[in-house]
Amino acid sequence: MIVGKQSIQFEQAVHIISAASVAGKKEAEGPLGNLFDKTYEDPYINGQTWEEGEANLQKDAAAIVMEKAKMTPEQIRYIFSGDLLNQLIATSFGLMDYNIPIFGLYGACSTMGEALSLGAMTVAGGYAEHVIAMASSHFGSAEKTFRFPLEYGNQRPFSATWTVTGSGAVILGKEKGIARITGITTGKIVDYGVKDSMNMGACMAPAAADAIYQNLMDFDISPEAYDRIITGDLGYVGQTILIELLKDKGFDISKQHMDCGIEIFDSERQDTHAGGSGCGCSAVTFCSYILKQIEKKAWKKVLFLPTGALLSTISFNEGKSVPGVAHCVIVECE
Amino acid sequence: MIVGKQSIQFEQAVHIISAASVAGKKEAEGPLGNLFDKTYEDPYINGQTWEEGEANLQKDAAAIVMEKAKMTPEQIRYIFSGDLLNQLIATSFGLMDYNIPIFGLYGACSTMGEALSLGAMTVAGGYAEHVIAMASSHFGSAEKTFRFPLEYGNQRPFSATWTVTGSGAVILGKEKGIARITGITTGKIVDYGVKDSMNMGACMAPAAADAIYQNLMDFDISPEAYDRIITGDLGYVGQTILIELLKDKGFDISKQHMDCGIEIFDSERQDTHAGGSGCGCSAVTFCSYILKQIEKKAWKKVLFLPTGALLSTISFNEGKSVPGVAHCVIVECE
Repeated sequence: MIVGKQSIQFEQAVHIISAASVAGKKEAEGPLGNLFDKTYEDPYINGQTWEEGEANLQKDAAAIVMEKAKMTPEQIRYIFSGDLLNQLIATSFGLMDYNIPIFGLYGACSTMGEALSLGAMTVAGGYAEHVIAMASSHFGSAEKTFRFPLEYGNQRPFSATWTVTGSGAVILGKEKGIARITGITTGKIVDYGVKDSMNMGACMAPAAADAIYQNLMDFDISPEAYDRIITGDLGYVGQTILIELLKDKGFDISKQHMDCGIEIFDSERQDTHAGGSGCGCSAVTFCSYILKQIEKKAWKKVLFLPTGALLSTISFNEGKSVPGVAHCVIVECE
Repeated sequence: MIVGKQSIQFEQAVHIISAASVAGKKEAEGPLGNLFDKTYEDPYINGQTWEEGEANLQKDAAAIVMEKAKMTPEQIRYIFSGDLLNQLIATSFGLMDYNIPIFGLYGACSTMGEALSLGAMTVAGGYAEHVIAMASSHFGSAEKTFRFPLEYGNQRPFSATWTVTGSGAVILGKEKGIARITGITTGKIVDYGVKDSMNMGACMAPAAADAIYQNLMDFDISPEAYDRIITGDLGYVGQTILIELLKDKGFDISKQHMDCGIEIFDSERQDTHAGGSGCGCSAVTFCSYILKQIEKKAWKKVLFLPTGALLSTISFNEGKSVPGVAHCVIVECE
């Protein structure tokens, strides 16, 4: 069950019973727009504030994922969820009405990987019949938290990413579903000393490279074992760095690599520069496009690794670097 | 293994192999002062900023807990940790040098309960030989994050608590240790609509009452089953509310109840008003006083439940209430 230094192989795979994706207008207009379960024209997602809006994204995603599985909140033993906001307020306020025991998680934009990992461990360990794993982000609340008030209309360098407005949720259980989680590789915090909060791809690429390398070493496989190796939100800049870093370690993943941040927007047409980012980026891409590809067996086995940049305005303003973290989840078709 | 609505009983108990507590000057001067493994005179804990100081608390606690167990970072499979700061920067910057796979957690001041719960599930599930579960808080970084700059010298109402400067850490494993975790009851978010950020005890008491009630119901026991029922940081105001709420539900815990926030300071002499608070409050009290009492079998079985107030300045300034959450851990002597 314990594999190598950082991995787990589940003796019995944990199944993804249902998946839900809820997103904003810009995401709806992007290449994956018609794959989402629900999208909003209103940037406030029916809330009075950005934060209420993001909470509503989580509330919706949880409701839809239960509806799709024909389940009620009483049938869900735990929720594993998180977001990017200070003290996880989108999670707390979005999910509290469901009255489900909750584990709040923070892994920056890697949170969906952390939620899937802990959720799968919980089900495989016999601690729950069904759990929800989910995450969210919102462009407005993230810009307010991490960058500039939108009213400034500040210019963004081309290395900057665009925070995805969206929430993705899955129900994990033991019965057959739409895909299977067969293993995980949990990441360490990796810090290359990058201090540019407008270049998150560069901050996260070393952590992604470290996690992928460890996954390949632990399971003693080559990148060809996967139909896709999918990072969360490295964007174009981070992708280039990731592929180079892994080449230096002896692995060429250029054929398998895909990035949710690159897939979710048409960067040129939508002016999103390096690509999409945020917990919601990997979460909604996973819960729509990726799981659909696996369900129809277009991909048989993928390595999904949401990537997080451990940025806070406080540490950033105190001159600290932006360390990265990434959590790998092995997802296979039924 | 699954017990009742929200609980788990471990088929084989998970053992607490070692525990470490690191705290600040005020805590050192309090009633538990001589029980801590390390204390600092310097309020910045050898850092340049409050946040660096809090990160150093976590770094120290992790180092000491490994030293006490005669283990190296390579022998620790995962760290479960969290703090109160925006984006968990005390955790990220404090622990990254250990190169241990990490699950970042946010449960406000209930984080030590969340870390112990997930850590115990991980060890009992066969996913790790040894994990660290820990949490921290710091008076300076918390005041800066949640209340007023210290330089204001603002007055505090008597219902206000004093954030503990400290970090507590345990190593969990399968071999015999100083105490055993035999079960958990994971809390839901409970919101009674309290909006007073200077009265966190009132915000958290309903969640504590809910979690204790569910623990007693799930295991079909009465409060007398425990030598102590120990909340994290309700303080004097919260304690009164908790006992009343549980009386309304048919349970009298007035004989068993103890609160880390009340124990850690001599409120009158140290001018800490309603008591101590913060993730560090329950974490250091647990890793010093509580575990020592259990180790010497003065207490045979306790219910330890760190309590969290899901407060953020953003949600607070937007007029939101402060919901609570609490996670129960059943700890027994060896």
